[in-house]
Amino acid sequence: MLIVQKYGGTSVGDVNRIKNVAYRIARAYDQGHKLVVVVSAMTGQTDRLIELAHQVSKEPDPRELDALLATGEQTSAALLTMTLKDIGYNATSLVAFQARIFTNNAFGKARIDKIDSPILQQELKKGNIVVVAGFQGIDSHGNITTLGRGGSDTTAVALAAALKADLCEVYTDVEGVFTADPRICRDAVKISRISYDEMMEIASLGAKVLQIRSVEFAKKYNVPVHVRSSFTEVEGTMVVKEEPEMEKIVVAAVTHDKNEARITITRVPDRPGIAAQIFEPIGEVGIVVDMIIQNTSAEGLTDVTFTVPKADFHQAMEITRNVASGIGAERVLGDEHIAKVSIIGVGMRSHSGVAAKMFSALAQAGINILMISTSEIKISCVMDEKLTEKATKVLHDAFILNKGLP
Amino acid sequence: MLIVQKYGGTSVGDVNRIKNVAYRIARAYDQGHKLVVVVSAMTGQTDRLIELAHQVSKEPDPRELDALLATGEQTSAALLTMTLKDIGYNATSLVAFQARIFTNNAFGKARIDKIDSPILQQELKKGNIVVVAGFQGIDSHGNITTLGRGGSDTTAVALAAALKADLCEVYTDVEGVFTADPRICRDAVKISRISYDEMMEIASLGAKVLQIRSVEFAKKYNVPVHVRSSFTEVEGTMVVKEEPEMEKIVVAAVTHDKNEARITITRVPDRPGIAAQIFEPIGEVGIVVDMIIQNTSAEGLTDVTFTVPKADFHQAMEITRNVASGIGAERVLGDEHIAKVSIIGVGMRSHSGVAAKMFSALAQAGINILMISTSEIKISCVMDEKLTEKATKVLHDAFILNKGLP
Repeated sequence: MLIVQKYGGTSVGDVNRIKNVAYRIARAYDQGHKLVVVVSAMTGQTDRLIELAHQVSKEPDPRELDALLATGEQTSAALLTMTLKDIGYNATSLVAFQARIFTNNAFGKARIDKIDSPILQQELKKGNIVVVAGFQGIDSHGNITTLGRGGSDTTAVALAAALKADLCEVYTDVEGVFTADPRICRDAVKISRISYDEMMEIASLGAKVLQIRSVEFAKKYNVPVHVRSSFTEVEGTMVVKEEPEMEKIVVAAVTHDKNEARITITRVPDRPGIAAQIFEPIGEVGIVVDMIIQNTSAEGLTDVTFTVPKADFHQAMEITRNVASGIGAERVLGDEHIAKVSIIGVGMRSHSGVAAKMFSALAQAGINILMISTSEIKISCVMDEKLTEKATKVLHDAFILNKGLP
Repeated sequence: MLIVQKYGGTSVGDVNRIKNVAYRIARAYDQGHKLVVVVSAMTGQTDRLIELAHQVSKEPDPRELDALLATGEQTSAALLTMTLKDIGYNATSLVAFQARIFTNNAFGKARIDKIDSPILQQELKKGNIVVVAGFQGIDSHGNITTLGRGGSDTTAVALAAALKADLCEVYTDVEGVFTADPRICRDAVKISRISYDEMMEIASLGAKVLQIRSVEFAKKYNVPVHVRSSFTEVEGTMVVKEEPEMEKIVVAAVTHDKNEARITITRVPDRPGIAAQIFEPIGEVGIVVDMIIQNTSAEGLTDVTFTVPKADFHQAMEITRNVASGIGAERVLGDEHIAKVSIIGVGMRSHSGVAAKMFSALAQAGINILMISTSEIKISCVMDEKLTEKATKVLHDAFILNKGLP
């Protein structure tokens, strides 16, 4: 098999862990597999470099920041490759310009356009293990770009797609994807197979296990992704194309996310174009708005509520206050102490009453819902941050342990 | 003027020093110069990376070691460039593949073949400051190479040659080239102008101020090099083509080097090919022999003495012992506690009696000479390490302070 393996920062966090990873790669090689290995920067390295950048500049130039950050993965790729050679395996490290990982020029959040690597193909043909620095690319002018937090996942999946690999293994510090955060729910169990769509929702609703974009890529090119631990031998979670079996499970997982904050503008004049007036200035500074709720209008006035990442809360509040006074709204309320708890499952498509059961389970536990948002395969409720753990357990009990049928 | 500036590791050793360098560059830019800036890795960074490499492998793979080390200069280039942008100057960092610095594939000691950088030219044309990561190149297959210790000097001079720059300024932590090490000779003075040939001898005889290869490059392409301190404003030393004036000074500088060790093989059968038998196995493992002395033969037997870098002493002794027993020599003697003190000056060519005066000055000070080696413009004497300081002072007094005429 041709396998693309990806090792995250904690898996290559120090010299001993790098050696551990090298032996794991060696075992797979000895089993007869062709291997491409994608590595992240050693734990903490990216943060240290960002810290350095901020010491010389309050707003580091994005192009230069990417050139700086790319050194992290170059370092771990070179170290892992010399470790492999040291234990007698032929290996070669490649950084983005060598692996010809082309991206657009959106520094800090670049998207992979194309991977076209004759060197990589040649090295594989020679029977060598190829170690690729994750997280980075080059644009069409040869500038170094990076793919954003978790970008090495996307490097791995994109390489697997480009090379038509049989499997992409993502090694991380958890054993796979769980039905809920095991630190909160003792009853949480590892999911053995999950669909791309469910995984995308889980990734965007708070679980850090895979970068969302990597799952989009995997879905688009139908790359099977095995999420597993680099510290144990147990099987992890396979992320695959939706299978008929999966529909039978109503809720595959319960997630929670404490990284958003809520902003409400009260008594907004309800006229066409008002939403654009509110959200354009927020989008212009690069703040990503998640949920947006607008109540039915009464007396030509309405309330608009939305959520933004906690890190952007203060900036978003300032912009919103300006907008609010400009459009003649009453006031702006902010709340940083919220959490979003969600249930996810492709089974929701074919089962009715799921939302009702969710709301009733939360109500019985005395949990007040502040906002609701739904998609075809997920329902999210925003609540007071303090209730996160309670809500997660209640929903896990109701849907996962009891198999979720209303 | 088009100026290539090079800043060494201590000049960019921490965030404050990087800022200091940025302001220095800004001043030169404001004076109307076009600027290309070459940076080394921050002090200690290269050693830290080598240490990491040795933690994963006793003999790190040379290709991977170069890929690892090259991150040091990429880091400082990006940090310096974002500092420049932060204070309002347009700047762009380039690593080797972007600046198209092509070398041969001798990892760890690569030689620059060609620099061909349309990007660099474009950026200069736009009026931008270009910051180039020193010490690194790529070979014709796109592998990352490094140029060896002090390689950033060569990057700078090679860029100056390729761009036909008016001047190459090498900023370091000393104020220039001195007539002797000022830590030893209080009377040592800064040399204002020195020839390429003299500088090459000084660099190879112990002074660390410029990489030898950079001086060869400067001579070949006639690039004027200004060696000066990044911590003060005073003029340093200009390294230039030999000028008629220079011949009048017999000795330009006294240098000392404690980094060699001496090996003697006694009673070597004096037959053709014997020298090759001794030195081939030493050369094969990459040990560079400096001085070689063979006494006139007596009774068909001779003594052969040579010096090697101290770091290679034990390996060289082992090889030499094997060789000695193979060729039927008597014994092998080793001495790690030697020093080489040299006098250098293009004036030696036209002045006679310089060697005699050197030996007599040393003799009067009670210093025993163990080995002598000469070239057209230098005389080196090997002596007991403990006598280094004394010999340096005696020779500085005799030749520099007294203007050196015998």
